Amino acid sequence: MLSHTDPQGNARMVDVSGKALSSRKAVAHAFIRLSPAHLEALTALPKGDALSVAQVAGIMAAKKTPELIPMCHQVPLSHVSVELRITADGIRIDSQARTEAQTGVEMEALTAAAIAALTLYDMLKAVGPDMEIGDIKLMEKTGGKRDWKRTD
Amino acid sequence: MLSHTDPQGNARMVDVSGKALSSRKAVAHAFIRLSPAHLEALTALPKGDALSVAQVAGIMAAKKTPELIPMCHQVPLSHVSVELRITADGIRIDSQARTEAQTGVEMEALTAAAIAALTLYDMLKAVGPDMEIGDIKLMEKTGGKRDWKRTD
Amino acid sequence: MLSHTDPQGNARMVDVSGKALSSRKAVAHAFIRLSPAHLEALTALPKGDALSVAQVAGIMAAKKTPELIPMCHQVPLSHVSVELRITADGIRIDSQARTEAQTGVEMEALTAAAIAALTLYDMLKAVGPDMEIGDIKLMEKTGGKRDWKRTD
Amino acid sequence: MLSHTDPQGNARMVDVSGKALSSRKAVAHAFIRLSPAHLEALTALPKGDALSVAQVAGIMAAKKTPELIPMCHQVPLSHVSVELRITADGIRIDSQARTEAQTGVEMEALTAAAIAALTLYDMLKAVGPDMEIGDIKLMEKTGGKRDWKRTD
Amino acid sequence: MLSHTDPQGNARMVDVSGKALSSRKAVAHAFIRLSPAHLEALTALPKGDALSVAQVAGIMAAKKTPELIPMCHQVPLSHVSVELRITADGIRIDSQARTEAQTGVEMEALTAAAIAALTLYDMLKAVGPDMEIGDIKLMEKTGGKRDWKRTD
Amino acid sequence: MLSHTDPQGNARMVDVSGKALSSRKAVAHAFIRLSPAHLEALTALPKGDALSVAQVAGIMAAKKTPELIPMCHQVPLSHVSVELRITADGIRIDSQARTEAQTGVEMEALTAAAIAALTLYDMLKAVGPDMEIGDIKLMEKTGGKRDWKRTD
Repeated sequence: MLSHTDPQGNARMVDVSGKALSSRKAVAHAFIRLSPAHLEALTALPKGDALSVAQVAGIMAAKKTPELIPMCHQVPLSHVSVELRITADGIRIDSQARTEAQTGVEMEALTAAAIAALTLYDMLKAVGPDMEIGDIKLMEKTGGKRDWKRTD
Repeated sequence: MLSHTDPQGNARMVDVSGKALSSRKAVAHAFIRLSPAHLEALTALPKGDALSVAQVAGIMAAKKTPELIPMCHQVPLSHVSVELRITADGIRIDSQARTEAQTGVEMEALTAAAIAALTLYDMLKAVGPDMEIGDIKLMEKTGGKRDWKRTD
Repeated sequence: MLSHTDPQGNARMVDVSGKALSSRKAVAHAFIRLSPAHLEALTALPKGDALSVAQVAGIMAAKKTPELIPMCHQVPLSHVSVELRITADGIRIDSQARTEAQTGVEMEALTAAAIAALTLYDMLKAVGPDMEIGDIKLMEKTGGKRDWKRTD
Repeated sequence: MLSHTDPQGNARMVDVSGKALSSRKAVAHAFIRLSPAHLEALTALPKGDALSVAQVAGIMAAKKTPELIPMCHQVPLSHVSVELRITADGIRIDSQARTEAQTGVEMEALTAAAIAALTLYDMLKAVGPDMEIGDIKLMEKTGGKRDWKRTD
Repeated sequence: MLSHTDPQGNARMVDVSGKALSSRKAVAHAFIRLSPAHLEALTALPKGDALSVAQVAGIMAAKKTPELIPMCHQVPLSHVSVELRITADGIRIDSQARTEAQTGVEMEALTAAAIAALTLYDMLKAVGPDMEIGDIKLMEKTGGKRDWKRTD
Repeated sequence: MLSHTDPQGNARMVDVSGKALSSRKAVAHAFIRLSPAHLEALTALPKGDALSVAQVAGIMAAKKTPELIPMCHQVPLSHVSVELRITADGIRIDSQARTEAQTGVEMEALTAAAIAALTLYDMLKAVGPDMEIGDIKLMEKTGGKRDWKRTD
């Protein structure tokens, strides 16, 4: 049963009025696959600012989630972080969001990771458009009805 | 050489002042992989509204691109479309953006596809968090210095 | 006495610091009057997507209320819904907003209804500009100092 | 035929790529009906600031139109004005928007009028919720395919 | 030690999850220095609307603070006011913000004052660009770990 | 005469319809005065990320100017840069904005500088609130009716 739609299939913002506040956390992941030329361009920079810009963009995007995802509640985030690590074939993005609210912050963590990845794409696209963003997925969530952790 | 950073590695919004206006198009793609339970929930809906909501979210997100991607120019879009197709193991998203401007609309097409995918995730997450978004990539761009089409 | 202005007539965002959180609901209404040509165009559509787009627009606008109405507080909405019904001479819009906050959500419900109506206007204006939006009014509010219900 | 939907009924942002820039103007109207108690509260204010706030809100909302109305193009406005006049039974709002663009500014003028009216509602709601907003309609548009003027 | 950066110097939105809600207030100040020609233009206006516009802009900007300042938390403001006073050589701006939250509202009060000052600059720049904005500073904050008041 | 107000003193967005597009540039400045303790905290960071965050915030704020300053036109920026330099008693901010439009970009350059300064304040406020932002002023503008350069 999809809670974001009523029995007639109309979209709605789910009613969370009755729910108690609880402390919640979500951890998400994204990956941008880069060519050797992109990786070389990235490491040739004196200060690695492309990563800084993507980190800031991801954190700001987490706060914009309810403006982007139509049925998302406005959740006041108590913490957001976005970490980026250059690997052999791309950049790995790990994001985390926390709140004390009636609903979770999966979408905030996922949005942070996705926008950080898109920002990297933008910063690196002068080298060529042959990049690909993937592996956007929730890794873990705690608080709310039940905790969950990705096992694969 | 990365145009979004100056020789000192500082981020900047690239100067496009000298460039001529040209008609530009970008086509992008994303995919959300779903479990059989997600696919069943989706097709049980009377009117497929989850797809409509995602489509609207993608179109609106294309217009928000310069607010999300720090170094993106503000480009007035002359057209945006987002199409979604249910496949055997998920939903395929094809987006398109057009403009007549000094700079391209790759990021607008990619952002539309990514946010449509995240919206689907949100609409379907009541069924479970075991979804994954990937294959976010540019398929084609025309206009500007040179045309490009993904060949793989 | 207008609470949104101080004794000198200066606008201000009313101080609600002292007030207790309470569960609040507001129900609002709007109507867009259409010509027979508009109604025909609307029903000729295969899936009635103009209504879906307006519904999403109304829900998203409710969340944007404090950005639009200068003296509105930022209230985290626990629920928003927008329902549209085609009648003999137009489309009736019924919206509802809920929160648990120090202040009410009348403006959120009214803004949802008004923006849903404007979106319908936009989707249908290719048929002609002879539409009219009216009857934007609060129907009911509960929570806060006292409950109220429109009686006319 | 509705241009905001494709033959399958999918919403889209209409393609205006081929269209020439032209100078365009739109004039819109709204009215908020007030009780005698509301009118008295309004005129008791030393400087009529409720009207100033509504005027600013309307002008700012015109610029936000493409964020609110999903299929609206982003049109750079060359002029916006919002005028408010207290009448015997309410406040009359007249708005105007201008641009030089590939598409018109009806929605911008209508949004300015509607949000100015909602702002007045917010500023006056401490007196009571028995107000009503109506008569939101286009009065005139020039530029584009053909000029139009309301005749009733 | 800077709390907005982790031990590796990465920016992050500080984790306030553990902190108790408390009632907080911040008072800020800004000044725009004007030439005699600017002051004359200002007082020649029939209704002093430049000040009203700046006041509204400041209040609205306070609500936008977390969109502007990357590491700011989203704090629901329970009160905002912005007061402007014409002095012999400019306009003095005093702003105040209040909340009940896990973190303070210094940035909200400062942003309100700064944007009110920039709005005055915009309204008066037709007279000439020889204005200067300064003295943007926190005057007082209460609530949180410790109260503070500017002593110079 | 103030162009942002009509003869009755009503605020309006100035009509620039008749004006020709021209290439325009504006250069602005701001300064944040820091205590020795703030300067020490800043330089103790491994990568100077507070400066990167402020730079990104300033560039993004330039694009938000028409949302913040009520009577500003929406100008598509062709270039924005923000440079920060640590001095003996604070951080100096130099911003630049460019466009090809009917109106100038002074407010965009000034807003970029002001928000970069506020962001530095936010990043450094854990050390103490005794900072002060000032010297926000236009340094130079070219394009439009006449060029101008600050001489003091």
